[in-house]
Amino acid sequence: MPRYKLTLEYDGGPFCGWQRQSNGPSVQEALELAARKLTSSDVQAIGAGRTDTGVHATGQVAHLDLDRVWPLDTLRSALNFHLRPQPLVVLLVEPAGLDFHARFSARVRHYSYRIVTRAAPLALDAGRAWFVPGRLDPELMHEATRSLIGRHDFTSFRGAGCQAASPVKTLDHLAVRTTGDELVVTARARSYLYHQVRNLVGTLKLVGEGKWPVEAVERALLARDRAAAGPTAPAHGLYLTRIDY
Amino acid sequence: MPRYKLTLEYDGGPFCGWQRQSNGPSVQEALELAARKLTSSDVQAIGAGRTDTGVHATGQVAHLDLDRVWPLDTLRSALNFHLRPQPLVVLLVEPAGLDFHARFSARVRHYSYRIVTRAAPLALDAGRAWFVPGRLDPELMHEATRSLIGRHDFTSFRGAGCQAASPVKTLDHLAVRTTGDELVVTARARSYLYHQVRNLVGTLKLVGEGKWPVEAVERALLARDRAAAGPTAPAHGLYLTRIDY
Repeated sequence: MPRYKLTLEYDGGPFCGWQRQSNGPSVQEALELAARKLTSSDVQAIGAGRTDTGVHATGQVAHLDLDRVWPLDTLRSALNFHLRPQPLVVLLVEPAGLDFHARFSARVRHYSYRIVTRAAPLALDAGRAWFVPGRLDPELMHEATRSLIGRHDFTSFRGAGCQAASPVKTLDHLAVRTTGDELVVTARARSYLYHQVRNLVGTLKLVGEGKWPVEAVERALLARDRAAAGPTAPAHGLYLTRIDY
Repeated sequence: MPRYKLTLEYDGGPFCGWQRQSNGPSVQEALELAARKLTSSDVQAIGAGRTDTGVHATGQVAHLDLDRVWPLDTLRSALNFHLRPQPLVVLLVEPAGLDFHARFSARVRHYSYRIVTRAAPLALDAGRAWFVPGRLDPELMHEATRSLIGRHDFTSFRGAGCQAASPVKTLDHLAVRTTGDELVVTARARSYLYHQVRNLVGTLKLVGEGKWPVEAVERALLARDRAAAGPTAPAHGLYLTRIDY
């Protein structure tokens, strides 16, 4: 059973997230169906990040075990053929050893969150970024990221229904940068709590709007209480951009 | 009748182009309907560029004459409210004199054409860029633009059904640049023939693929025969980005 590592891009809009669900089409199911059409046998896809409903990916990674060896470009083209017309594509196929596991071998998961601040709603980027009318101060937001970086109990940023054994996670990187009227929050960590990035972004937005002082973010973290932090930013601004192994 | 200059952004996908048509929803009609809902009177929208079916805009300009004076931000918000949920928004409203005409006062129309060259189809940019599998040589394409800049008879790049009085146009600028696996062709001119930018791009692509030598582009131009140039690039890669007055 040769194992293949796939790098995936998808528009999260029409999917109910990565993981197979009974209530709608998931990315995992779409990929497994495409692999089944190709191989005429059941194939399980394991993903590095279980993205939520509506979350996009430009660098999700999954692995598949197939019943025979495939030329890499042929496998990519054939999977992409069977994935059509869904907005889900295989960017790259690489051979992987049986010791490679898309989820458990992942060392760093990179996310980006796009916020567009302007007066008019989004036409071209509708569903691809969070539209926040008015101004956000990116420098204050960036300053507020400092207290969040490192190993902390992130209970205040943990979504309801989170299945992680512990609320303690290590955030390797969290930063805010701007280009024109767009503000991008980037995060890197081995793993996250459920909704953690979206809850961090929703809280940083309060700082950007001037509703919270910078120091309030650290107080929210230390409170270890979800009610102490800001609201959850919408899914459609979030992108899983890269996995390091 | 105060006149207003509007700057518009739209996803051309669901529209049959700028101009009012009997066979589908046009940008012009959508804008006029929104203005009518607001003012309860008939309003005519005049656009700077009559974009084709599927062509996008990030900086289309139109003017409207309304029956009373509006605060500029209120007018923008109210039009955007009535335009929902269509992917068409008013970015900016400015007051304009009665000597301002969105179409006839335009001095330079800026277009950009996005081509993505990679092995996998587009998931996030589907419908927003021309997907060309494989490689294009941007330097050869850029070199080929040189013979096209300036005042020429562009009959070879003139789409069937073009209503321009003359095939002679002055192309102020035509360039090819790349960022990652994306190639952008930019064009600037006072006005264009029907399908001119898309026909130029379709021809430059032949050079990028190595199917045509650079010099063949000038020969195609001099032939003054549509059959001598390359095919029409698809509409969904084209963006009307700016109008100078």
